[in-house]
Amino acid sequence: MKYVYILGACGSIGTQTIDVINQNKDKFKIVGISVGHDLRKALDVIKLCNPQIVCFRNKDDIRSFEKYDFEKVYGDEGLKYIASCHRYTEEIVVNALVGSAGLVPTVEAIKAKKDVALANKETLVMAGYQIKKLLKEYQVRLYPIDSEHSAIWQCIQGENKNDIKRLIITASGGSFRDKSREELENVTKEDALKHPNWSMGEKITIDSATMMNKGFEVIEAHHLFDISPYNIKTVIHKESVVHSMVEFNDGLIKAQLGLPDMRGPISYALLYPEHVKFSDDEMSFDSLTMHFEKMSFDRFPCLAYAYEAIKKKGLYPAVLNAANEAAVRLFLANKIKFLDIEKIIRKELDYEYDNVDPTIEEILEIDQLVQKRVYRKYGDM
Amino acid sequence: MKYVYILGACGSIGTQTIDVINQNKDKFKIVGISVGHDLRKALDVIKLCNPQIVCFRNKDDIRSFEKYDFEKVYGDEGLKYIASCHRYTEEIVVNALVGSAGLVPTVEAIKAKKDVALANKETLVMAGYQIKKLLKEYQVRLYPIDSEHSAIWQCIQGENKNDIKRLIITASGGSFRDKSREELENVTKEDALKHPNWSMGEKITIDSATMMNKGFEVIEAHHLFDISPYNIKTVIHKESVVHSMVEFNDGLIKAQLGLPDMRGPISYALLYPEHVKFSDDEMSFDSLTMHFEKMSFDRFPCLAYAYEAIKKKGLYPAVLNAANEAAVRLFLANKIKFLDIEKIIRKELDYEYDNVDPTIEEILEIDQLVQKRVYRKYGDM
Repeated sequence: MKYVYILGACGSIGTQTIDVINQNKDKFKIVGISVGHDLRKALDVIKLCNPQIVCFRNKDDIRSFEKYDFEKVYGDEGLKYIASCHRYTEEIVVNALVGSAGLVPTVEAIKAKKDVALANKETLVMAGYQIKKLLKEYQVRLYPIDSEHSAIWQCIQGENKNDIKRLIITASGGSFRDKSREELENVTKEDALKHPNWSMGEKITIDSATMMNKGFEVIEAHHLFDISPYNIKTVIHKESVVHSMVEFNDGLIKAQLGLPDMRGPISYALLYPEHVKFSDDEMSFDSLTMHFEKMSFDRFPCLAYAYEAIKKKGLYPAVLNAANEAAVRLFLANKIKFLDIEKIIRKELDYEYDNVDPTIEEILEIDQLVQKRVYRKYGDM
Repeated sequence: MKYVYILGACGSIGTQTIDVINQNKDKFKIVGISVGHDLRKALDVIKLCNPQIVCFRNKDDIRSFEKYDFEKVYGDEGLKYIASCHRYTEEIVVNALVGSAGLVPTVEAIKAKKDVALANKETLVMAGYQIKKLLKEYQVRLYPIDSEHSAIWQCIQGENKNDIKRLIITASGGSFRDKSREELENVTKEDALKHPNWSMGEKITIDSATMMNKGFEVIEAHHLFDISPYNIKTVIHKESVVHSMVEFNDGLIKAQLGLPDMRGPISYALLYPEHVKFSDDEMSFDSLTMHFEKMSFDRFPCLAYAYEAIKKKGLYPAVLNAANEAAVRLFLANKIKFLDIEKIIRKELDYEYDNVDPTIEEILEIDQLVQKRVYRKYGDM
């Protein structure tokens, strides 16, 4: 029996994680979850998984749940508590938090020697080197929950790392794939939120439209698989059928493909190395066309910025993430235009950050500094 | 150092095997080869790989090579000799013979405890169960040299056999993919030999046009990977970029893809589990489209016959192969029409063959019986 903690249980990844777990009740028991602002949704989720501990956003949220018999915690301290409490031998934390808020709980989980299934992108983007050091120190395993990294992880099963020539990460192109730079000038938040293939949270949907999401994935892949960013390629694949590929030294390429169902990567991360059925849906090849196109850094400068940040290392990836996070929030609040997102990131990366080997604390500091600076400068545009 | 014997060294697979080996001279030494009718080609190949033993087709062929200092053998006995002679600790026989002639040398190699890299399709089609028994008895490994089986083999690395749901074998559709049944009435040998994606020998190119080649691959895959024919699917994929796929119980699919270069599967079989570079060519995804279409058994009855034969087991797969081999030979000699191939196979499968667990000798007998019957009946059409 594996005991599971789900951070971000009410989000898209969170609820799909609960679905996978409820289909494998002989293998998993949910211990703790964190829920979001929507308390009605929270109640549904709590009923679905019957946890021992629930972390709410605010102290006030607890009031509506007083009659329920579970341990109640809240806020950042509550998240830390859920990430770090240690009650069973085999435990795993599913980190499906959105944004930089995901970093500290990952660190806490590792320090508590709990394995981590990671859907939070920012953890590795901000602090990949530091997290890898911790994983080694605490002998903890980290499993990716993300269709691209799960694909790469599956493709390298049974293979020798030295035989890998390059990783090829596919990108749907996001909501604005077919729009020119000029057409992007006046796109709205509503336009941006219409992702063609995947139904995801707001933040990641905007990150897909700017291609920053792919940039984050390049950085994460670099950390997860120890492959130089120079050997990580991205390619536009609008159908999102191929989730990513690995090319070996002999030119042979392995790809992982399937339906756009996040329960695939979730199930694989939780049940690794087993492949356990979670759905009757079956991919059909009876009439299928897949397209692959060259990625353009001119069209998607955010992707170029991500490569730049990870090549510069130090604080740059955290700055990239902080600038992006604040900018996307401003865009979602209708405070800035879509193309302002990349301009803001460019500006923040242009400062000099000379700390080449920052601690997690220093990374959290720069995150706050950059985010505050962006809000101050552009919050009232 | 691995010591290599190449049966069919002058053919397409044979010469590409020599190319791979000559790029890895620190790892391989060629000991023996068999050559074909074309003695000029034989001389070139002999010079390329400097073998200790050469097997010629006929005794007469030896005359032109008397001044050369290598052991000379000939005919079926010569093939057996090369397959079975045992001179070094680590030896591998690459069986790239065409047709049912490939079966006995595979058996001899296994009995001599030499590993086998198998490009000869007929070995497993005719006698899959018997070969598997021998492999177990003599503790010998068999590596597939075939883009489809190599793909499947790569995709299951590091995976558990019980997690496999089905195999999906891709088919280019052969030279006549876009022709209707009616249009097939009067196609010529020359038309049939124009394969769109792969440059291969004549027999296999015709087998591709009738889709019998795919039927053979289904039978081989059943034996190689222990998967029921009911769980082996075929799909038309005209670009031949995806070489085949494996679907697991959770619906996740792994595919192997790459350029249409047989040195890929050859190199993987010889150097397994390593991926060693053999070419500067690189697959490009800058502008690539892949199509997948439903396979039709009505359009390609030979494929249906292959499924029928392997489901019936016993002598049926050997009958399928013998009828096809004789019919293709008659077609290549302009003695019958293209659509007669499938009619001949249908007729031969309609006889009753009640030996459910034949020996290799009985399989060879039925092979001769059926081939002779086909030549007798249709040879003078």
